[in-house]
Amino acid sequence: MASYSIQEINDLLKGELVGNTTQQIEGPEQLQNAKNNHITFIGSTKYIKYWETSQACAALVNDTLSVEPGENRAIIKLKNADLAMAKILELFNPPAPEFETEIHATAVIHETAKMGDGCKIGANCYVGKNVVLGNGVVLYPNVSIFDHTTIGDNTVVWSGTVIRERSDIGSHCIFHTNVSIGADGFGYRPSDDGRGMVKIPQIGNVVIGHYVEIGANSCVDRAKFSSTIIGDGCKIDNLVQIAHNCILGRSCIMAGQSGLAGSVTLGDGVIVGGGAVIKDHTTIGSGATIGGGSGVINDVGPGQTVLGYPAQDSRDMLKQWVAMRKLVKK
Amino acid sequence: MASYSIQEINDLLKGELVGNTTQQIEGPEQLQNAKNNHITFIGSTKYIKYWETSQACAALVNDTLSVEPGENRAIIKLKNADLAMAKILELFNPPAPEFETEIHATAVIHETAKMGDGCKIGANCYVGKNVVLGNGVVLYPNVSIFDHTTIGDNTVVWSGTVIRERSDIGSHCIFHTNVSIGADGFGYRPSDDGRGMVKIPQIGNVVIGHYVEIGANSCVDRAKFSSTIIGDGCKIDNLVQIAHNCILGRSCIMAGQSGLAGSVTLGDGVIVGGGAVIKDHTTIGSGATIGGGSGVINDVGPGQTVLGYPAQDSRDMLKQWVAMRKLVKK
Amino acid sequence: MASYSIQEINDLLKGELVGNTTQQIEGPEQLQNAKNNHITFIGSTKYIKYWETSQACAALVNDTLSVEPGENRAIIKLKNADLAMAKILELFNPPAPEFETEIHATAVIHETAKMGDGCKIGANCYVGKNVVLGNGVVLYPNVSIFDHTTIGDNTVVWSGTVIRERSDIGSHCIFHTNVSIGADGFGYRPSDDGRGMVKIPQIGNVVIGHYVEIGANSCVDRAKFSSTIIGDGCKIDNLVQIAHNCILGRSCIMAGQSGLAGSVTLGDGVIVGGGAVIKDHTTIGSGATIGGGSGVINDVGPGQTVLGYPAQDSRDMLKQWVAMRKLVKK
Repeated sequence: MASYSIQEINDLLKGELVGNTTQQIEGPEQLQNAKNNHITFIGSTKYIKYWETSQACAALVNDTLSVEPGENRAIIKLKNADLAMAKILELFNPPAPEFETEIHATAVIHETAKMGDGCKIGANCYVGKNVVLGNGVVLYPNVSIFDHTTIGDNTVVWSGTVIRERSDIGSHCIFHTNVSIGADGFGYRPSDDGRGMVKIPQIGNVVIGHYVEIGANSCVDRAKFSSTIIGDGCKIDNLVQIAHNCILGRSCIMAGQSGLAGSVTLGDGVIVGGGAVIKDHTTIGSGATIGGGSGVINDVGPGQTVLGYPAQDSRDMLKQWVAMRKLVKK
Repeated sequence: MASYSIQEINDLLKGELVGNTTQQIEGPEQLQNAKNNHITFIGSTKYIKYWETSQACAALVNDTLSVEPGENRAIIKLKNADLAMAKILELFNPPAPEFETEIHATAVIHETAKMGDGCKIGANCYVGKNVVLGNGVVLYPNVSIFDHTTIGDNTVVWSGTVIRERSDIGSHCIFHTNVSIGADGFGYRPSDDGRGMVKIPQIGNVVIGHYVEIGANSCVDRAKFSSTIIGDGCKIDNLVQIAHNCILGRSCIMAGQSGLAGSVTLGDGVIVGGGAVIKDHTTIGSGATIGGGSGVINDVGPGQTVLGYPAQDSRDMLKQWVAMRKLVKK
Repeated sequence: MASYSIQEINDLLKGELVGNTTQQIEGPEQLQNAKNNHITFIGSTKYIKYWETSQACAALVNDTLSVEPGENRAIIKLKNADLAMAKILELFNPPAPEFETEIHATAVIHETAKMGDGCKIGANCYVGKNVVLGNGVVLYPNVSIFDHTTIGDNTVVWSGTVIRERSDIGSHCIFHTNVSIGADGFGYRPSDDGRGMVKIPQIGNVVIGHYVEIGANSCVDRAKFSSTIIGDGCKIDNLVQIAHNCILGRSCIMAGQSGLAGSVTLGDGVIVGGGAVIKDHTTIGSGATIGGGSGVINDVGPGQTVLGYPAQDSRDMLKQWVAMRKLVKK
């Protein structure tokens, strides 16, 4: 296991070292659970009280907080301790699960599939006809990739994920477990006898840019025709629904259990809070923020923050919530 | 790749052909992305402006819109261009992913399982004891079907889907990727010492009719006893939850991320909007509509449209939303 | 198939037997669907009317209800017929799906993995490096367990479920189908050029206690560092999201499609209703109840019941709902 001295860690973070510890540091841990070989993190005044009784030998602290190191303990003061913590996590990031062989004997790979250098394909994967994998693509066990799909360099696909036919996936993406990419969009027409519904073929595909991350059990449906598009750098959390023909710009964030109905367009850098749902054919401007749990039924302008159901400008909605509370207070 | 002349396409659609193009048409595409071998679609006045600069050689247009074809371009005017587009999609629908062999050598199929003519079973599937598959059933790779389940003719099951024991599935159904059918209902009783909960066995099953479609990562739980029932022609979108002992009539629609708690009954033709949740033991009458994002805590009458949380008649709720906004406007 | 006389059943339930039937009872069924070899259940006055025309030969009835048995039919009167029904379900609980062999030949198990006595591992499972399974662990087909994960005695994992590396799982747990345990938490930092986001390594793990049940397609993310923790006896329904660094106490209940954002803490015995979402870094006290469909943005005290969005004390919220309705009624 890797270990570092407090000096080595501060050389990396370039903060202000206060106090000292001779203890080698073997990982980060929360204040209350830390042992003496751990470095911890004090993000706000409310956690300072735990420092004295914590066993941690060191802590990252925002330079606005007043904390004393104590005996054989050290503090590194930083402008942004939270950001510095990300570097600590990179330092102690354990290796990913191992592959004993690069291409497992139980993987079923169509003879027409092509793959670049250094790909790893786990046990019981399925790779269909004319699939093209770039260099360094990793498919963990039990992944299914269907015909004519292309996946860019160094993209990682975790177990249980299914990528349907004709998807076009960029490089450096991560698909977490049990993701569904390219399932049919949800579209029907009335049957000729008017008594039921007939499926409309969904003949489009899914196009995903580079550096996109899709959370566990999330879904991106294929387009009715043309493409459902996820722009470069989008980060999608778990259990998110992206319906057919949605278009997401660059670096959008969708938190857990949020959802886009059909043909929603997000600009660049849109943030959608957890559990928020957005009506079909709605356009959300670049830099807009949709509050958690909101229901959006109208277009949202660039940079606007909306909240509530039906979602409105957040300042208006906050006032409305106050007014509603007053209705029942005397 | 299939291609058609504009005359061949209009013979199918039986619209009014205005203008002409000698270009062979190779598929549908959206106005802005179309190349000159594409046919496109103009659904409303707001899209007319894109037609002039679109490279598409042809377009389907509602006959209420005023659009000029231009040189070597054609327009097909139709009463319902949207419905006609569904026929275009059928025309250009690409073939489903291929099976090299009908029953893949890596599929594990119990010796007592029976299957009809023309079934296809993909790599690494599991088919348990006494499973009965009708004619033409398709299981894509990595599907698991448990003991004593019956599946009707021509039903298609996509990768990652699990159908638990004793399920009874109709014909011409589609199960998209990572669907869970027949997991235990969510039922517990207090433990005898009062300090925890004890699982109540969920000994019922799931019964699904014909022409039912279940979206990616959706769940239908088995009944506590008796059956959870999905009627013929129901269409269920992605990430939908249907709890134990729910009963859905014929041709219900449940949009993405909607959910039914235990023992909810839907009549025929009920529409549940995206993200709406319905309380346990509630009855929703035939033809009722539940607005997207609503929370339903009371029974809803046949044909009624409800909205909001707690959901009320949509006209009342719309008025209430207006009144709430007025509270904070001077 | 097991069958019991009404006397044998009443010996188990110790209720008051009224009337008699010579019919052997072969299972429970709902009033309207029951055949004459079924025992049924009358839970409230609204179902009494179905008893006369039901074919069931026997019924469990709350002793506050007035129901006559009729000819060759029996009624068992009980203080809590619902709880007694759970015992009937245990009596008729059919066996779980069979394993022909204990460890299926197609399972891929790393040579360093250890397993206790009586484990069963289904077709096409994957078990990684240094995984440790206790006695009697059952992995149904198509399960993936990653490196250094530990699973306690008699835990059952259903198909499609993926448990990522370094998870620590207790005994007697049930993971339903397509569950995702230990996917990366959702954490990013701004990139140095300010134009995008960079992934923060999620180096923690998931720790799950004993007698925990996790519903189909639910997700529990690994911690950023330290652990995401689910306490003993927690019961989690389908399509639930539990984000990184959440901590659940003992015997919490989370109903379908509910979700916890990052670093939420639940005390013991907290109940979260279906579809409710809880903001990050919120603390919910022991014994608190979160109403279905609520959006919680503030801490909730022990024993408190909150409702609505933003969630408030349920009595206040109910009054507010009444007041809102009055706004539009004259």
